This record gives sequence, structure tokens and C-alpha cells, in this order.
Amino acid sequence: MSDKPKLRIGLIGTGFMGKTHVFGFATAAKVFDLPFEVELHTVADVTESAARKAAEAWGFAHATADWRQMVADPAIDLVDITAPNALHKDMALAAIRAGKHVYCEKPLAPLAADAQEMALAAEAAGVRTQVGFNYLCNPMLHLAHDMIAAGELGEIRAYRGVHAEDYMADATGPFTFRHDPAGGGALADIGSHALATAEFLLGPITRVMGDCVTVIDSRPGSDGQPRAVEVDDIGRAFLRFANGASGSIEANWIATGRKMQHDFEVYGSKGALVFSQERFNELHFYATTDAAGRRGFRRIEAAPDHAPYGAFCVAPGHQLGFNDLKAIEVAGYLAAIAGKRAEPFGFRAGLRIQTLIETIQNSARAGSWLAVP
Amino acid sequence: MSDKPKLRIGLIGTGFMGKTHVFGFATAAKVFDLPFEVELHTVADVTESAARKAAEAWGFAHATADWRQMVADPAIDLVDITAPNALHKDMALAAIRAGKHVYCEKPLAPLAADAQEMALAAEAAGVRTQVGFNYLCNPMLHLAHDMIAAGELGEIRAYRGVHAEDYMADATGPFTFRHDPAGGGALADIGSHALATAEFLLGPITRVMGDCVTVIDSRPGSDGQPRAVEVDDIGRAFLRFANGASGSIEANWIATGRKMQHDFEVYGSKGALVFSQERFNELHFYATTDAAGRRGFRRIEAAPDHAPYGAFCVAPGHQLGFNDLKAIEVAGYLAAIAGKRAEPFGFRAGLRIQTLIETIQNSARAGSWLAVP
Amino acid sequence: MSDKPKLRIGLIGTGFMGKTHVFGFATAAKVFDLPFEVELHTVADVTESAARKAAEAWGFAHATADWRQMVADPAIDLVDITAPNALHKDMALAAIRAGKHVYCEKPLAPLAADAQEMALAAEAAGVRTQVGFNYLCNPMLHLAHDMIAAGELGEIRAYRGVHAEDYMADATGPFTFRHDPAGGGALADIGSHALATAEFLLGPITRVMGDCVTVIDSRPGSDGQPRAVEVDDIGRAFLRFANGASGSIEANWIATGRKMQHDFEVYGSKGALVFSQERFNELHFYATTDAAGRRGFRRIEAAPDHAPYGAFCVAPGHQLGFNDLKAIEVAGYLAAIAGKRAEPFGFRAGLRIQTLIETIQNSARAGSWLAVP
Amino acid sequence: MSDKPKLRIGLIGTGFMGKTHVFGFATAAKVFDLPFEVELHTVADVTESAARKAAEAWGFAHATADWRQMVADPAIDLVDITAPNALHKDMALAAIRAGKHVYCEKPLAPLAADAQEMALAAEAAGVRTQVGFNYLCNPMLHLAHDMIAAGELGEIRAYRGVHAEDYMADATGPFTFRHDPAGGGALADIGSHALATAEFLLGPITRVMGDCVTVIDSRPGSDGQPRAVEVDDIGRAFLRFANGASGSIEANWIATGRKMQHDFEVYGSKGALVFSQERFNELHFYATTDAAGRRGFRRIEAAPDHAPYGAFCVAPGHQLGFNDLKAIEVAGYLAAIAGKRAEPFGFRAGLRIQTLIETIQNSARAGSWLAVP
Repeated sequence: MSDKPKLRIGLIGTGFMGKTHVFGFATAAKVFDLPFEVELHTVADVTESAARKAAEAWGFAHATADWRQMVADPAIDLVDITAPNALHKDMALAAIRAGKHVYCEKPLAPLAADAQEMALAAEAAGVRTQVGFNYLCNPMLHLAHDMIAAGELGEIRAYRGVHAEDYMADATGPFTFRHDPAGGGALADIGSHALATAEFLLGPITRVMGDCVTVIDSRPGSDGQPRAVEVDDIGRAFLRFANGASGSIEANWIATGRKMQHDFEVYGSKGALVFSQERFNELHFYATTDAAGRRGFRRIEAAPDHAPYGAFCVAPGHQLGFNDLKAIEVAGYLAAIAGKRAEPFGFRAGLRIQTLIETIQNSARAGSWLAVP
Repeated sequence: MSDKPKLRIGLIGTGFMGKTHVFGFATAAKVFDLPFEVELHTVADVTESAARKAAEAWGFAHATADWRQMVADPAIDLVDITAPNALHKDMALAAIRAGKHVYCEKPLAPLAADAQEMALAAEAAGVRTQVGFNYLCNPMLHLAHDMIAAGELGEIRAYRGVHAEDYMADATGPFTFRHDPAGGGALADIGSHALATAEFLLGPITRVMGDCVTVIDSRPGSDGQPRAVEVDDIGRAFLRFANGASGSIEANWIATGRKMQHDFEVYGSKGALVFSQERFNELHFYATTDAAGRRGFRRIEAAPDHAPYGAFCVAPGHQLGFNDLKAIEVAGYLAAIAGKRAEPFGFRAGLRIQTLIETIQNSARAGSWLAVP
Repeated sequence: MSDKPKLRIGLIGTGFMGKTHVFGFATAAKVFDLPFEVELHTVADVTESAARKAAEAWGFAHATADWRQMVADPAIDLVDITAPNALHKDMALAAIRAGKHVYCEKPLAPLAADAQEMALAAEAAGVRTQVGFNYLCNPMLHLAHDMIAAGELGEIRAYRGVHAEDYMADATGPFTFRHDPAGGGALADIGSHALATAEFLLGPITRVMGDCVTVIDSRPGSDGQPRAVEVDDIGRAFLRFANGASGSIEANWIATGRKMQHDFEVYGSKGALVFSQERFNELHFYATTDAAGRRGFRRIEAAPDHAPYGAFCVAPGHQLGFNDLKAIEVAGYLAAIAGKRAEPFGFRAGLRIQTLIETIQNSARAGSWLAVP
Repeated sequence: MSDKPKLRIGLIGTGFMGKTHVFGFATAAKVFDLPFEVELHTVADVTESAARKAAEAWGFAHATADWRQMVADPAIDLVDITAPNALHKDMALAAIRAGKHVYCEKPLAPLAADAQEMALAAEAAGVRTQVGFNYLCNPMLHLAHDMIAAGELGEIRAYRGVHAEDYMADATGPFTFRHDPAGGGALADIGSHALATAEFLLGPITRVMGDCVTVIDSRPGSDGQPRAVEVDDIGRAFLRFANGASGSIEANWIATGRKMQHDFEVYGSKGALVFSQERFNELHFYATTDAAGRRGFRRIEAAPDHAPYGAFCVAPGHQLGFNDLKAIEVAGYLAAIAGKRAEPFGFRAGLRIQTLIETIQNSARAGSWLAVP
């Protein structure tokens, strides 16, 4: 039997992301030597039947329709929030007040002001937090980060990032919470990933010039009547980084045919990196130091050389999946809870993303460059 | 609490594949609505300390250094064998005699005669068996299979398969059990995958012409002295299929730079498919029925359209990983144990692969075509 | 013997582009049924020896160090200008005054005001003009154009274009005419291609927001002393098109590792196109009308279906080269001279590109959106 | 005016390949500093009108319906044969007897015995010959050759070649001369390219085991009645090379969707190369000497580093086309005629290919390995 301390999870939300978190906990517990024995304690949803069904399917001991009660339960160590975005703040603040660690799906909150309140509360309470930006957990992104940090690309000069999908491409699709002017839009929904990756690789963005476009300006509301859409279907930004580089990102959720184009290109004085989430077990690297006539972008395949790939598989080229990235996220977060490392992407990092989004949105509205606060 | 019947697992072996099986059980239990509640009951290894360490790490209740005792334990429902190949037969036969279901890593046994004895024993005992050919569990392979079966490619004419890696490319690497004349060689080790995929897609192979080549003819033995290698580093075969098509496969474990080139191309009268395990969440499809001037191989990305991808992720393009394939294998096997479907790849299928391998090896030695028994 | 009218060429400049033009005339004469018999009459360069050497190598009957005399020579029908950019205007105006057709390498002139003077002069004189934007001559770009025009992509929503190379990536490379504030910079040099392709495919750009960045701010001058660089190494722009779409382009001549990344992505309501000049005999097409579970970007290979590919090769997939694009340009231009079609890309089109460039540059300086005049 | 000696061409045949040869001569004359001034003297075809039309279109001074007269004409220096395969021998022998250099499209002759007679005749007469295997003229193939020769891949161990297209995939397509038992079939038609590339890169093939399959066993004859097809639609071979490597090639002219899959993979002890004619301006190179965690196949793009690319274009990544390969072939041949180099691929090389083809065909019939004579 394990003599590790237990970490009892209280999950709120049983949708796609709730399921993905459960996968993440389960896989992390098998793949990594976690500092805790994770116990799926209680799951909460709006109805008790939904919660009970999820509890049975996923192995939680308890189910409840009252997330407030669960959050206050002394038996719970970590509150995991995968409920709709608008509820993140109340849930997280309640959990923080109860002294729980809080794991919250992205976005941390629809508005930066709310995210700031959450981050400050967590820091004041001394709990550990995590926001779900799992693309950052890809070993190939860490490889890219480390190569840049080690100077393998020389001085970094230019960046181009994109996150494009097509889940909103159908103009007859309904108006959803993602179209809500408070926190909605492509930039907030997926541009957030592009921004997180950009800062993960190149460091702080200092100035932005935004461009937000609504393409499908009306969608069927819940009453079947057309409802005006004000949020961006496409969000773009020019960027300046503190390290001197310039770049751009684009978010597009009506990019017909694209399912997961979370891509970037980084150009330095000595080399370059090209990545696509469409083939996220690969990183393409160009080095000017290769011999003349032998240079080219080389396709590095994920392998045990690229931690923590080796924890999943001892052989190279076998590939991680999307859910594995969530397991890496869980493992990093639990290590932070155990005090073994800094928070990989805590509420302050989540706040940072919201700040970037709002600055870009404001810049787009103003039609001029803005400094990032 | 679950009211599903329990299925208590006894695992033999705690190496790479043992770990992968544990991942598979854990993920399958979360991703799928399995017909059983899987219980990791006992793990066995050659030493009790190794077994105990694995038990703790992976969540087994018991550990033992005596696999025979475990196999005989009435508490165990399913014996899962990931021990070295040479032991598969004894372990499996003991388990079958004890009335257990048996899950055995590939190859089923070094020799087809042994595999046959195992298959017959399992069938006589009425237990359900599974051999670990998890590349076959990829939704994109099932898509390929279904497209071929549905006639989307028309009459199938030609097949080209390859499985190439480079884990034996270093000539200074030691002589291992994989170099043992009984059951060793690239054809047996990875050509088995190429053959399994070929028959999965096109149906039975009826005749073969083999070509087996030893490139590195000596490797350091355990005593540091050179030891002659007789098995193939490269195995090739021309193929004839019962459906009238012809084709070829190649196995190569010294293919410098290749980590997971499990690839195939299928050409029919109306279309074609191209697949590479290097990008195994994609299948490339050419249809002659596309409009003139608009034809081309289209890159289909794995999506909920392609079961059981949707059980892992509701969004397209997010990608499965290698370990997810094992979870699919587990789920299919458990469904077979529950009587809900035929064995996906039981001992008879494992025997079939060994038969194909030996026929190709015999053909290579004879330098002439042989009918597959 | 040919009874076609002769078209006697007077070429100015014997560098890379002069050579490429000669290749273009030679290939066009063989590949196409041109309306003229092209005669390489006279070549001019700064020294007579250089001109004579080129004449001999390329088959011109005459050589001269005096381009003014050549331009005035009644024997010349078409003046082909591949001299440095700063000379284009004087040469072109002189040729127009002499009633010659004028073929001018890009850029038409460093400044839009000059380009306008040239375009107006040509139109007043009634001569036919051509500016060398040969990437537009690619049959796959024409396919893309025609698919968009025919509505195969539905309503066009978004565009992303880039032209990145690395010929200026070395910070120790000398200050050249391409760094001259009047007409220099990445946006003018290669962003011009990105803009030309964008308008070729989607029609007029109406508004722009520019971003111009100087990365290497000093280069060795001809005296070996550092000379300040003021032009952009990277130029970006957000775009609005008259058809309602939005988009962006980027020009980057310090993109280490990139040799010819002239790429675009077009997203419409019913489909999408993806193209890279790195593989310019392919066009990738996604159609929402493909069957569910069978959709994907399909790689269309250049073939006789895509005119004028068939004039070069009757078999598909054999591929055109860069010089072949120039031959297509020549053929189109000669057809325009013969009155069989409109100018493919005359001086007015060249002026348009300069106008776009300057508007983007002005926008970048102003830090705000500008309407394209 | 050129003071180079004239080389007066007599071309037989005005079809696709005749045109390609004319393109080759024209481009070569502009791109390279040829040792001769090429003069397109006479073109011959079966009717004088066809010949005359071609002469006018392509710039030949004379046209004739009597190739024998042309071949005997003292004004002709080089006879260029692009007539149907069955006529190659008579034409070439006549030309050789008249002391002409002979440039002959592939295959040199339907049967190796004929090819041998031709090679011996040419050698006896001391004329220079060339067979049209222009894929070998690709700078990237020369790069591959040179890298292998220089030991950059270490000891060469394995080879996999394929040449697949789909021009015979339609079962309703007519019986043509390519289906003639004497010299027809996929192996002869396109497998010849795969064999030529294999020997170009790895040196002599010593033993083969063939597999020839007729898939479409009847096609409409010229009278509309079904006519039995005996030649192979798919030809495969296992190979042994004199350098110790083993390999395989496949020829398939019914590979639906493939337009130009002339591909190879070469695996050595220190590196590997992967090439596809579908993207023939690239060569992919894996080096074990790259740093750990940074290894991968790198995509080398054709550039001036790779002669003679630089003669076509001074900038990298601009790409050569199919017709450019023919120009390189012409230039190499003319250099051989001028005594500046050995024949790049003369009649003896053409004979070699026919010998390989027949040995593979004989092996397939015998069902056993055969030594290559």
C-alpha cells in the first residue's frame, strides 16, 4: 500500500473537460511517481443524477449537486473546476476561502479584473493553483523552450503563431456562451493558447496592436431568433517582446478544415524552429551551423530524450496523445503542491493571458498600439 | 459503487510492456464503459522486491515472485503475460489450465508449433485470449479497413507495407534474446506488425516469397566475446492475397533514423490509401471520383467520426497517443471476455502471424515461393 | 520558316534577372505557340564587354553599352529592363517615348509616384507593359484563383499570406541598394509578392494596418564602415479586402532557414486552400462537401488539367520549375502585345503594388489603419 | 557570333518526348556554356506534314518523312531518336553506321540482345551515345550519390526504391505498344527508372529475385475486341548489390493516385537518405552525428550548393522543373561528345538496364533468384 499522502479531489463539471481531467489524473498516477496518492473523492454537477452517473463512470466515491458544500468539505484537498467559464470565479474564490488548492480550466475568468481577484486571493491564501493550458505540457514545446533559452537559435528575431480551428465555421451554429461579449470570441477562446505559447517560448510581450473581426454577425439564439454576435471570429495581433523580437499571432475559429492548427515559427540569428500541433510529436529545427549543402529543417520526433516523454514510453517515435498532455499538466501541478517546483501555470499566469487578451481587444477597438500593463 | 462484475488481473512482468499494459487498463477504465470493474490484483516478477515495487507504483494489491502460484490463485480472472517471449508458452498454458483468460504480449511464442499448442489449449478450455498487436487498434486503421471492405477503393490490386526502426542499427549493441535463432530477428519482432496490418486490411495471405538478410553478423555476447548472429536484420516478402491482390512487406530494425515507420499503401481500382505510423492520427485517401483537376490524396485527421476516437476526445484533430491504442486493445478484449464480440486478436490470430513468419523464413531459406499453410 | 511577325527584344541588364528573362523567352518560344517570332536583338549593359559576353552566351545579335541608343533603335520592338531598380523609371520612360513595349522587372519603381508616372506614360503611348511578378504565373495559383472565383470555397472569409526568405539574415552582410530608404526593405522586396498574390486571389485590398521592423540596424557600407539601416527587415500588415474578407501578410527577409516561403491560406465558408511556394506544384484543398469522416486537405498535384501546365508536359506530376514560370509570364505578355488578352500584370498593376507598399509603410509609421488610395 | 563548333541535330519523332528533347536543347543552350552551338537542323516524322509542322513550331530548318535519308545526311552530327521503342534499333544502327552520335529515348531497345548490338556498334564506331534517363540528372540525386560515395551515410546496408504511377490504372484503357510482350510492362517502362537510380546510387546489382504480376489481363485492342495482356502491371524485385547491401524495387503503373512516385530510401550505418520525385527539389538526410535529442531527417532544399542548380538560378529554393532535368541531360551528353567527360548514360548503360529488367523477368518466371549477367 502506498504511504504517500493522499490528495483528495473534488471535481466540478462532468462535461468534455471534466472527463479529460479525470483521464489526466488516472494517467498521471500510472505514468509518474506522483508525490500524492490521488483519490477521486467527490464529483459535483448541476443535478445529482448527472453527478452520480459521472461518479460511477469515473470512480469518484461521492456525488453531489451542491458544489458549495463540496468545496467546503474538509475531506477535499483540491478543487478542480471544469464548469462553464462564467462560474469559475465564484467557485475558485469559495475554494480558496476554504483553503483548497484550485485547478481551473481555461479561461481563468472572462475578465482580467476577475482573474486578478482570483490570483490575489490564491496568493493571499497560500494555495497552489493551476490553469489548464495543456498544450504547453508537450515535451516538444519544452524542447523548443530549452533550445531558445540555451541560445541554439542565437538572438531571437521573429515569431509567428496561430491557433485556428473550424468549430464555429458553420454560420447556422447556435449562439453559445463563447459568443458572450464578456469573455467570448476566438481570441479569448483559442488565441489564449497562441499567446500562452508565445510567452512560454519568447518571454513577456510588451506591446500589441490588435485586429478583431466579426465575420458571422448573427447566430440563432436559444429562442431560434437571430441574435447579434459582437465577439471576434478572427483575432490578430502584432507583438513586441521584451527580448527585442517582434511577431504576430492569429486566432481563427472559422478556419474551415483546420482542427488543431496551433502552430508557430521562431526565427533566430543562428537557427529556426517550426511546429504544428497537427503533428505535435515533431519539432522542426534549422541550424545554420550544419554543413553547407546539408542544411535543412530537420524533423525531430518526440523521444525519451525529451522529458517527460520517457515516462510514457521508453521507445522513441511512439507518440503522446492529447490526454497525455493533461497527465503531464497534472503531474506538474501536483509537484508544485508538494513544494517541489513553482506552479507551472498558476492563476497569475492565467491572469496574464486575460490581460493580454483584453489589451489586444482594446487595441483593436482603439485602432492603435497599446502597452501591455 | 460499481455493480459491474470484477475482473481481477494478474500481471507477469514489470518491464516496458508491463507498464504499458497497466496504462492500458487504467486508461480503458476511464475512457470506456467497460463490462467489468478491473482490479489490479497481483503482479509477479522474478524477484519479490521488483514485484513489490511495481505493485506499489501501479496500484496492485499483491506482489509475488512466484508466477505459478499467482496463475493458480482462484482470485485471479485474467493472466496478463509481459514476460520474455521464451516464457510465454509455459505461463499461458498454466493459466489456461487454471481456467484463466490470457492476455499475452506479442509474439505469442517463438515458434508456430508452440503458438498452435497454446491456441488449441485456449480454445479447448473456452477461455478468451488476446495477443498484443496494438497498432491494429488505431481508429485510422479501422477506417482504412472499413473503407476497403465497403468498396470505397474498388477492387484491391496492390499493397506495400513496411515496419522499419533503428533500435538494432548500432553494430556494437549486445546480443539479446531478440537475436536468438528461435523466434528472433526483425521479421519476427516487427515484421509481425507489418503482416498483421496487411491481413487486417486485405485478408488472408496465401503465398509468400521471403528474403531474409543478416547485416550485422556478430554482436558482443554477455561475456563480451563476439557472438554470431544468424537472424535477419532485414526481412522482406512478396505476397499474394486470397482477394487477388499482390503486395510486399519489409521489416528492418537497422533502418537508421526510423523510429516508427509502420507504413502501408493500398491501391485499388477506384482509390488508394497511404498511412504512416509516424503520423498515425492521419490517413491519406485518394478517390478517382473527385472532380477532374481537384483530385489528390487527402489527409483525413482522426476525429470523433472514427470510433473509438470520440471516447477519448469529443473534438477532432486532438490526437491519440501510443498508450491510448493499448487502452483500445484492452477494451476490445474485455468486450470479448464479456461475450459482446469476437476476440479482436486472440491466440489463433497470434498463431497465424507466427505461421506467416515461419513460412516467409522457410521461403527465404529455400529461395522459392511457398504456400501459407 | 515562320511567317509570324518578329518581335525584336532589347534587353537591359545581364545579371541574374537578365538571364532569367532570356531563359523565359527561349522556353516560351518552344513551349507555346507564341504570336511572334522572338528575336534576341540587342543586349545592353554598363560596359560593352559585359554586354558582348552576354550577347554571345545568350544569342543576341548585338551588344551595346549605351541603353539609350538601343532604346531609340527603330529595330527594337520591346525593351526588357532588368537593370537596378533605381534606373527603371528613366529607362522605361525613354522606351515608352520611343513607342516600345516595356517589360520591367519588379519593383516597377522605388516610389509609387514614379510608378504612376510610368503607368500613365505607357497608357498614353498605347504600348503594352509587363512587370515581372512571375509567382503569379504558376498554374496552381491560377487554379486557386479560379476555384475562389467559381465559389468552390463559398464566401471568402480569411487570408494569411507570407513571403519569407533568409538572404538578409546574416547581420554582417553588406549594405546594398535593397537597404536604400527609397524603395528598399523586406516589404518592398518580397512583401510585394505577398501583396500581389493576395490581390490576385481575393481582389482589392481596401484598408491596411502596417508593422515595419528593422532588426539589423547597421550593416557594413561600401567603405567598410557601419552604415545605419532604416528599412524594414520584417514588414507585416493586417488587411481588409473589398470582398469583405480580412487577412494579413508578412514579409521577412531574415527568416533563417527559409528559402522561398511564399505561402498562403484562404478560408471560405465551404472550403479552404493552402499553398506553399516551397512545393509550388501542389495546392491543398479542403471541401466541406466531402463525405463525413472522409474530409481532409487534399494535395492536388499540377497536371495538364491546370493550364498551361500541359504545354510543358503532357503527363501529370512531372512539375514545373522556377524558370518555367517566367516562360508563362513571357507568353502571357506577348499575347497581350498581340491584342489577344489584357495585360496580365502591366505597369498599372505594378503601380498598385507600390501603392500598397507605401500605404502599409505609412500606416506603420503612423501606427494606425489607412485606406488604400 | 559564336565561334563554337556547330552540332547539327536530326530529330526523329515529334510526340511528347520529341518536344521534351527540343525543350532540353533550347534550355541547355541558354543555361549552360555548351561546347557546341546547337543547330536544330532537321526533324523527321512518319508524314511530311507532321514533320513540317514540328519544324515550324520548334525551329528546325528542315523537315522530312524519310528518317533514313536524314540519318545519312552528312549535314547531321547527332541523331536524336524519340520514335516508338520498336524502331530504336534500326534507327540507331543506321545512324551509327553513318558515323553519327546517337541520343535515344529510353528504353534503348525492347530486348537486351538488341541493346547489346546497339552498344557494341556504337563503341566500334566510336560515336557518343546517350539514353534518356533524365531523373538521374536531378542535382538532388547527385547530392545523394556524392554523400553516399563520400561515406556520409557510413556503410550502406539497405535500399528501397519504387516507381509508381497510375497511367494504366483504368482497366478500360486500350492495348498499346507498352503492353507488347516484347519489351512492354511496368517493370520495363518505369521499373527501368527505379533500377537506374538504384545502381546510380549504390553501384552494381549482382543478384535479383523478381515478381511480376499482371492485374488487368485484358484490354481493348485496336479492333475494339478484348486482347490478352501478358506483361506485368506490377514488377517487384529483391536486390543484392556488389557493395554488400540488399534492397528492393517496385514498379507499378496502376497505382491509383500516384503521378510520379519515383522514391527511394537508403539506410547506412551512420545516416539515411529519403527522396521522393513528388518533391524532387528536396532530399531528406538523417545523420547519427547530430546531437542527441536534435536528430531528425532534415529537408535539404535544392540550392546553388548542388550543381548544376546554380546554372539555372542563383538563389536557393526556387526549384527546377522536369524539363530542366532534360537540359542537364543534354549538357552532360554534349560535354561527352566534346570529350570533356565520360558518357553520362550511354548505350552500354541502357543495355545494363535492359539486362537487369530481363533478369528480373526471368527470375519471376522461374520463381527463383538469378545472378545478373
